[in-house]
This record gives sequence, structure tokens and C-alpha cells, in this order.
Amino acid sequence: MYALGTHLLVELRECNAKILSNLKEVQTALINAAKIAEATIVEVAFHEFNPFGISGMVIIAESHLSIHTWPEYKYAAVDIFTCGNTIKPEKAVSYLIKKFQSKNPSVVELKRGISPTNEKLPHKINMDQDSESPQPAFSINQKF
Amino acid sequence: MYALGTHLLVELRECNAKILSNLKEVQTALINAAKIAEATIVEVAFHEFNPFGISGMVIIAESHLSIHTWPEYKYAAVDIFTCGNTIKPEKAVSYLIKKFQSKNPSVVELKRGISPTNEKLPHKINMDQDSESPQPAFSINQKF
Repeated sequence: MYALGTHLLVELRECNAKILSNLKEVQTALINAAKIAEATIVEVAFHEFNPFGISGMVIIAESHLSIHTWPEYKYAAVDIFTCGNTIKPEKAVSYLIKKFQSKNPSVVELKRGISPTNEKLPHKINMDQDSESPQPAFSINQKF
Repeated sequence: MYALGTHLLVELRECNAKILSNLKEVQTALINAAKIAEATIVEVAFHEFNPFGISGMVIIAESHLSIHTWPEYKYAAVDIFTCGNTIKPEKAVSYLIKKFQSKNPSVVELKRGISPTNEKLPHKINMDQDSESPQPAFSINQKF
């Protein structure tokens, strides 16, 4: 069905625990995955937990990629949420499976924002905002 | 079944388009949702697109919240991915439905990292890392 977004839920089991616990490797992998999917990266934020485990996200112009790693279980949960027709999220999945050496991966594909009439949903149609003009794009990036 | 994470996929339809297109309101809403869920916020990154539409993520110690808004369709896709027993993601969902004035919301709950034997999965068990010590926690936050 026609939808605004495609959401891949990626379960990476039986990975290489050392890679999953290395902040730089995990961050580089997710950024590379976004690039391989031909996405446009706009924000990146990662966090490493004590004693181990990494959470990270890459906001892309086409939605986002996220990852949470549990090196102690050799497991990572990855989400690749994309919109538009030009992006190739399946390439990102293949890359991440290989990068983390997952011996038992699985992927579920969901549609988000499904068109109730199953009509195409063009992006950025005109919006009635009571004469308010759209604001120029800018971004916020905060750290707590 | 026992799992490492609980993932709520929240479809917010028929929302207030003005709120969905206001960066400050969307960011504040997602941060408040994390707090209402009793999560610990570690990173926040938001981006506003031209001519409209906002993407944002809040990394929490217990995983993440994300949002993508399509004001032109009065629609927002929200994900609330949590782990541990102390967090209350359902409270975050109720808050966001009210905040964005969604007249037609839906929620799907998924388990991520399911225990194949349906045994409890305690967090932060010991990890065999060939004598490598866990690194102290720190974080990276980049903007492109």
C-alpha cells in the first residue's frame, strides 16, 4: 500500500561483541549505512553506556537510522526509517549485517503513514496554515 | 515473551498541523514525553525541513524516542523504544496523543531482542572480552 514511510526493523543476533562495544566502529557503521542507502545525513548523536552498550541515531533528510547494542548478548537492534523513492534502505541492512558479522539477522518491513485510500502521497504538498509562511529550515542539536 | 526492549510504534493521525510544524513545540513535546515516561535523557537532536516537517530524536538511557512530522498530512510517526522495568512508555504515548491533538491515533507494541528460550535477560551481565576492560561511558554528538 502507498505510505509516507518505510520502516525496517532489523534484529542483528550473534554479532561480533567487540565491534558492538566500540563506539567509533558503531558510529562509523551507522553513518556509512546511511551513505550506502543514498540518504542525506543532517544530524548524528551517539552515546556510550557504562560498562558497555551503545545507542546512536542518524537523522537523515529521509527520516532516520538508529541503533542500540547489547554486546553482552551479541545483539543489536537497528531501525531504518525512510521516506521517498530514491533511498535504498535494503543496501544499508546488508552492509550492517556484514559489518557487525551477524550470523542470525532478521528484518521486518513496516509501512508508516499508510494512505487510507491507497492513493499516492506526494511530499510537501501545499498546506493551509491560515496565511502563515513556512519557516526556513534550521536544526537544533542539544546534549544533556 | 521476555525481551531486551519494548518498541511502541505510534501513528498520530488527524493532528493539529500548526503544532506539528513548530520546531520548538515538537521538540519540547518529545523531551516532555521522555520525562513523563521516567526516562533519563542523554542526547537530543532535531531538524526542521524546508518548507515544513520536523524530525527529531531523544536518546535515553533506556533506548530512544523519535518523531517525524508531516504537517501537510496532519500526521506524525513516533517511536518509543525502551528497555528495563522502571520506564513507563505508555504514559509518553498518552501525553503525545493529547499534545498533538490527534483525533485518530494507533499504537503497535513490538518486542525487540526476544529471548529465544523465553528466559529473563538481565542487563549488563559480564562479558568475555579477552581481558579487555569496559571503557568509561562518554558521548558523541555531531552536526552535519
